[in-house]
Amino acid sequence: MDEIQYMEELHQLLQNWRRDFHQNPEIGFMEMRTASIVASYLEDLGYKVHAGEEVMKREARMGVPEQDALDRHFEWARQNGADERWLERLKDGMTGVVGVLDTGRPGPVIAFRVDMDALEIQEELSPGHLPFDEGFSSVNENTMHACGHDGHTAIGMGLAKLLMEEKDSLNGVVKLIFQPAEEGTRGAKSMTEAGVVDDVDFFIATHIGTGVTARHVVAGNAGFLATTKMDVVFKGKAAHAGAAPNEGQNALVAASTAVLGLYGIPRHADGASRVNVGVLKAGSGRNIIAPLAFLQIETRGETSEVNEYIRAQALSILQGAAAMHQTEVDIQIVGEAVSSTPSESLVDIISEVATSSPYVDHVIPMSTQSAGSEDATYFMERVKERGGLATYTIIGTDLAAGHHHERFDYDEEVLLTGVDLLFRTAKALAAVKDEKECQE
Amino acid sequence: MDEIQYMEELHQLLQNWRRDFHQNPEIGFMEMRTASIVASYLEDLGYKVHAGEEVMKREARMGVPEQDALDRHFEWARQNGADERWLERLKDGMTGVVGVLDTGRPGPVIAFRVDMDALEIQEELSPGHLPFDEGFSSVNENTMHACGHDGHTAIGMGLAKLLMEEKDSLNGVVKLIFQPAEEGTRGAKSMTEAGVVDDVDFFIATHIGTGVTARHVVAGNAGFLATTKMDVVFKGKAAHAGAAPNEGQNALVAASTAVLGLYGIPRHADGASRVNVGVLKAGSGRNIIAPLAFLQIETRGETSEVNEYIRAQALSILQGAAAMHQTEVDIQIVGEAVSSTPSESLVDIISEVATSSPYVDHVIPMSTQSAGSEDATYFMERVKERGGLATYTIIGTDLAAGHHHERFDYDEEVLLTGVDLLFRTAKALAAVKDEKECQE
Amino acid sequence: MDEIQYMEELHQLLQNWRRDFHQNPEIGFMEMRTASIVASYLEDLGYKVHAGEEVMKREARMGVPEQDALDRHFEWARQNGADERWLERLKDGMTGVVGVLDTGRPGPVIAFRVDMDALEIQEELSPGHLPFDEGFSSVNENTMHACGHDGHTAIGMGLAKLLMEEKDSLNGVVKLIFQPAEEGTRGAKSMTEAGVVDDVDFFIATHIGTGVTARHVVAGNAGFLATTKMDVVFKGKAAHAGAAPNEGQNALVAASTAVLGLYGIPRHADGASRVNVGVLKAGSGRNIIAPLAFLQIETRGETSEVNEYIRAQALSILQGAAAMHQTEVDIQIVGEAVSSTPSESLVDIISEVATSSPYVDHVIPMSTQSAGSEDATYFMERVKERGGLATYTIIGTDLAAGHHHERFDYDEEVLLTGVDLLFRTAKALAAVKDEKECQE
Amino acid sequence: MDEIQYMEELHQLLQNWRRDFHQNPEIGFMEMRTASIVASYLEDLGYKVHAGEEVMKREARMGVPEQDALDRHFEWARQNGADERWLERLKDGMTGVVGVLDTGRPGPVIAFRVDMDALEIQEELSPGHLPFDEGFSSVNENTMHACGHDGHTAIGMGLAKLLMEEKDSLNGVVKLIFQPAEEGTRGAKSMTEAGVVDDVDFFIATHIGTGVTARHVVAGNAGFLATTKMDVVFKGKAAHAGAAPNEGQNALVAASTAVLGLYGIPRHADGASRVNVGVLKAGSGRNIIAPLAFLQIETRGETSEVNEYIRAQALSILQGAAAMHQTEVDIQIVGEAVSSTPSESLVDIISEVATSSPYVDHVIPMSTQSAGSEDATYFMERVKERGGLATYTIIGTDLAAGHHHERFDYDEEVLLTGVDLLFRTAKALAAVKDEKECQE
Repeated sequence: MDEIQYMEELHQLLQNWRRDFHQNPEIGFMEMRTASIVASYLEDLGYKVHAGEEVMKREARMGVPEQDALDRHFEWARQNGADERWLERLKDGMTGVVGVLDTGRPGPVIAFRVDMDALEIQEELSPGHLPFDEGFSSVNENTMHACGHDGHTAIGMGLAKLLMEEKDSLNGVVKLIFQPAEEGTRGAKSMTEAGVVDDVDFFIATHIGTGVTARHVVAGNAGFLATTKMDVVFKGKAAHAGAAPNEGQNALVAASTAVLGLYGIPRHADGASRVNVGVLKAGSGRNIIAPLAFLQIETRGETSEVNEYIRAQALSILQGAAAMHQTEVDIQIVGEAVSSTPSESLVDIISEVATSSPYVDHVIPMSTQSAGSEDATYFMERVKERGGLATYTIIGTDLAAGHHHERFDYDEEVLLTGVDLLFRTAKALAAVKDEKECQE
Repeated sequence: MDEIQYMEELHQLLQNWRRDFHQNPEIGFMEMRTASIVASYLEDLGYKVHAGEEVMKREARMGVPEQDALDRHFEWARQNGADERWLERLKDGMTGVVGVLDTGRPGPVIAFRVDMDALEIQEELSPGHLPFDEGFSSVNENTMHACGHDGHTAIGMGLAKLLMEEKDSLNGVVKLIFQPAEEGTRGAKSMTEAGVVDDVDFFIATHIGTGVTARHVVAGNAGFLATTKMDVVFKGKAAHAGAAPNEGQNALVAASTAVLGLYGIPRHADGASRVNVGVLKAGSGRNIIAPLAFLQIETRGETSEVNEYIRAQALSILQGAAAMHQTEVDIQIVGEAVSSTPSESLVDIISEVATSSPYVDHVIPMSTQSAGSEDATYFMERVKERGGLATYTIIGTDLAAGHHHERFDYDEEVLLTGVDLLFRTAKALAAVKDEKECQE
Repeated sequence: MDEIQYMEELHQLLQNWRRDFHQNPEIGFMEMRTASIVASYLEDLGYKVHAGEEVMKREARMGVPEQDALDRHFEWARQNGADERWLERLKDGMTGVVGVLDTGRPGPVIAFRVDMDALEIQEELSPGHLPFDEGFSSVNENTMHACGHDGHTAIGMGLAKLLMEEKDSLNGVVKLIFQPAEEGTRGAKSMTEAGVVDDVDFFIATHIGTGVTARHVVAGNAGFLATTKMDVVFKGKAAHAGAAPNEGQNALVAASTAVLGLYGIPRHADGASRVNVGVLKAGSGRNIIAPLAFLQIETRGETSEVNEYIRAQALSILQGAAAMHQTEVDIQIVGEAVSSTPSESLVDIISEVATSSPYVDHVIPMSTQSAGSEDATYFMERVKERGGLATYTIIGTDLAAGHHHERFDYDEEVLLTGVDLLFRTAKALAAVKDEKECQE
Repeated sequence: MDEIQYMEELHQLLQNWRRDFHQNPEIGFMEMRTASIVASYLEDLGYKVHAGEEVMKREARMGVPEQDALDRHFEWARQNGADERWLERLKDGMTGVVGVLDTGRPGPVIAFRVDMDALEIQEELSPGHLPFDEGFSSVNENTMHACGHDGHTAIGMGLAKLLMEEKDSLNGVVKLIFQPAEEGTRGAKSMTEAGVVDDVDFFIATHIGTGVTARHVVAGNAGFLATTKMDVVFKGKAAHAGAAPNEGQNALVAASTAVLGLYGIPRHADGASRVNVGVLKAGSGRNIIAPLAFLQIETRGETSEVNEYIRAQALSILQGAAAMHQTEVDIQIVGEAVSSTPSESLVDIISEVATSSPYVDHVIPMSTQSAGSEDATYFMERVKERGGLATYTIIGTDLAAGHHHERFDYDEEVLLTGVDLLFRTAKALAAVKDEKECQE
């Protein structure tokens, strides 16, 4: 089989996986079907596979769905194509998978991270939207792969296949990390704290799209903001607003007071910051003093320090607003990410590799354009703290509609580009005798 | 048939009606089944019956449900026991009915008002709750007669029967007004503006319960607060809270600002006032600047003037808050009631009548205890403006749980008490040769 | 000397006193000159006189001026006509005086309260304002008797003279209470807690004017609102608003947050309430995060319970707002008064007495018209708690301008009316053998 | 006279001028004495001098003091050493001066800007503060040269002397711009709009200190934030807070609402922004609904566009908050500055010149460190718009205490450094045949 034919067949494989995942999307910590298929495939290829408890610290997860939702989805997964060999280990929101290929030869530990989760978005089911036209749109109501993680998972599987096939041309160890719950920045911390990158010399997280054109690659993306996501409940006491207004404890007023306080958190001299109350729901009836108010909040900072400042201010504001109105407040951290800057020498290597790829026309070594938040930064910071190098690489593709849009879609050509680029990167890094060579 | 037996049979009749209405509750402007049964019954008795457009000014209704909800309910009513003779005239939220008994003899025009609507409350379906135990609990999800209007309608029908049977002992004209949408104070204004009480000399609105013990009667209830109900929408513009916070127009912040402003409306020197934001729902996602916010608001005042002051302040606050945050605001008045004081001489007559009733042990002539708001005040004020007398009479009953509670229920004995009291009142008033006699 | 001549001379005496006090006004707890003149005069008449520490509980005073202001004023008083015999005992803000006339005969203990303090208002110094025209306008800048307490003190002294002269026609004991610092409701509590009315059977506090016409008397004024006055300081930290906004702790924002919270304190179902932030001063420069904010706040309630509710809410709001913005808050109670209702049987006696006075044309037994707040209510409540009777009597007079106005003035005829009415009251009450006679 | 001796004498001259100005400080638009001395000296040197109306557009000034303050200061200046030759032209806040030296030879137009105004700060009058120890501390209460503009003026005069003496070694035209009211960014706009830099090819504004060490020079300072300063008055209506709360229009509440809104203005994606309410004063008494509230506000932006966004949001907030509370708002723009970036090629020339100066050890070509705001940016932007080059140069000096501190002082050596650097710059630029040479 010549290379062209091989790549065509690989492309078909990638497309099949991607379309299967797209049709069966699972939100964060629910990726039971997806992860079971991944784990089984890696196992079949000959990888040493770790999953669930082995690769995630249970209490470091954030924003885990309610237990009954997890249970219901487990049943769904079982009945909809999950691989029974791995399913049990992935229940209760422990859906991380790591595949390890040990060449047996000395060399660096290289890790690639892909994410697997979908979004709570209702996919548009109408002509002109490719998944609809081609019959692979989401079967799960209000759940959609609208950020490309279906493609990421497929790329991770394709990469696994190539690496195993070309194992003899590699050195050291390659780890393939399939992360749950990147949306809402909820899952990476639990894998980092379980130690999955503690021995890693080179770490590469990947995303497709995000505004980068097809056949363009950003070798190092430096723009991620540190962030904290909070779910907040103010608890007061209901009372009849006409007959006994003084007997209530008004959660709606406490929440409104907090809102104005939150948006008023001072700017920080050391860098950009953000705060948003995206959702506020309060009250039970027009003539009742509202006993409950629920808020979805996020803070961001150009650096982890700036975000920590905003977060600390937010906690004071929430607690003070509750005290003002004699209510109680419950604050849950449901997601968090730090900031991280790619290692320049690793960026240089990937830039060079990308230039050599037939699927890449243009390479941007380092981009500082803000691109929201990502919890791959936990892996990156851990690797860097322990002396390794880390980066976040973006593989461009043209989009039918923006990320998180109900008509989001991308050119499936990017799947092959991704596999090719990452495989070339693995080979280049495996050739580095000593990572000190390229240390910065 | 002796009187005891007659009353027993009447009681059975009242109970049947009440239980039928309880089982088939309809919210305000949706009382199509109820009103069609009432209208047909009155017609059968020999009343001249007016309904829909004849007795309601369409544009004076407030808080009318969406057209598709009206349409769906119309179909439900047709298939669930509505009387086809009248149903068509009651569609599209025009559910008022007036029955007229003209004795042909000179005498006063006497009007009784009862209301027919249920609440958006899910009835408790468990043992110990009489409607459940006796098998007449609500068949309509999230709809319940939890304020006794099922009983009011039954009393109105029982009164109609007695009046017609005893027609020869009466003089003048009796009008029986079956009002829609008292909950939320939305329906009375439209009937008042259609002129249904313009010729009325004596007007009596009735309620059961409201904290008054069984076999007690309040002849004149003076405690109603004037009120305005508003549904408010702030309309801004969504934007990504991380990438483009300056491109949003934050409806959630505008709403929170309005909330603090509304609760801060100054007290009025001339009497008690109230303001409440009972419900606030805003935003579409944690990381999106909220494009929309919805509020349910009510104001109240000890007098209509005080309420008008609070209402005017509220409008300034809502419009100003919208302007502050470059959003737009849409304010719908979805309910309104004025304040009204019972006519003392009519209260005296009813007190005397009540004292003579075998079903009444104790009479409170005038009560000023606040009891929320009621739009029967529109009828009262119109009657008084045109020289008539008006009152609001409460017929006591013991309750299983408070009004608007999911286990609300009352002793059905009150139905007979109500019919008896109102019938005696009609006879006493018909005997007044000239209402000037008892003018205050 | 006949009575007419006597009364003319008494009028001249009253006028002289009043004009002297008017020209030398002293604000609350500073009435050192005034009180020393009163004490010496009572002593000369033969009263047993108590002052300072004997009649005031030092730590129960509220809103006492700074020590250096007290010291400066002490010097001023010494050099401007204070009586050295008593001055030393009145220093440091201990300016209460009580004169006791014990007839030696059995009978009730009767107490009259007058107040002595002026206001921090700059008197208008221009023609048409009688004190200016007649040369007795205030010599103290920004200090003015603009509420008639100069007249109250003169009435108290005139009453002292008559009582002593007519001692033989009285029974029991008469106490004349000269209270400091009624303005801001700061002084009465300290005298009450020192026990000066603990043995009192009949207590009468007096005010002139307050909207009551000349030659009219209100025997019992029931309209006073309970109140609390607070001085509040938020303490934050300054920082440069451009260079280091995150380093500040913004007292101005904390104060603004508190303001919106305070006005939003819920209405109370049991009666009227009020809250006001009358003064807010914050910040040190346009480009500095404000390190300090100062607020003057008052709460009021139709009853003491309602005021206590508002006060407790206010404290939560102030502390919560401070916590929200990481600032500290210092709250000083600088004035307080309870609510109190006159004893009906005492009101009846005074009404009868007033009817008999040649200086009174019209008597209003009980008025419920709100007239602000008064701390004489502390005396009233204490007397009533211990079984005595108490009232607050208003002696009408026509005013040149309203109370607290820079052109406030009254017809000096009211001084004689006051002395006459209170003397007649003392005689009538002394004739009551047993106060149980008129107990309610 | 050799150069060393010449420089020593020049240093003495500079020190004398600086100390005289320091001792007689004048705040913005009040620099009548200072400007009259400058204008007379330039005239005596042989400059063509323009002042007042000729060099300032009257209506483009911002934050001009009240007329009576201007009048009083005019009298003070006349009696305290102002030069009568020029004083009349500088009255009424028209205190700008421009001196022109036309060499008569072809060549560029080169402009230097210095500013002359002092601050409303009370200088510390105690040992250890050099101006106090050496007897030249401020004679004007609450007025102090605490930002070094006394030195700037002296540098401008010294530069004038050197330029005239070395006129033959120059080409083209040199303009010396003495600007009023830089503090609060109030004066530059009026000179720019009068056209004083419309013909300028090279423009250099100068400041001493600002955190730059002695013998260091920043050739181009790029860190200035665009800014707007506003004085805002909310006008409501007083009412008695106890008796008639509903009759007031609460300016204090409107102001507090605006404060929370202002701090909540969204961050801008395009760069840093700031907003501060530095001062809030409201209300007239504890028990009065506040009729007036006064605020000092400033906004800033990394670019003029960002500041314009913040400013526009602030205006909406102020107007909306007024409308919410039925008050009126008056907004005065009392200062404004744009952002501006130094021209790189001019920065290069000055860097080279500075390197050659014996008074300079270290040159920082371009600094982006934020250093507050400056209205020299108006001149810079105008020059650049018309094809010229512009920069803002900082001449380092060690400070006794920070700028705007009551013990601010600097090493007077910087005066000579400044004159030398600017004179060298003038010579270097005069040698540029065509400014196109160094165009960027």
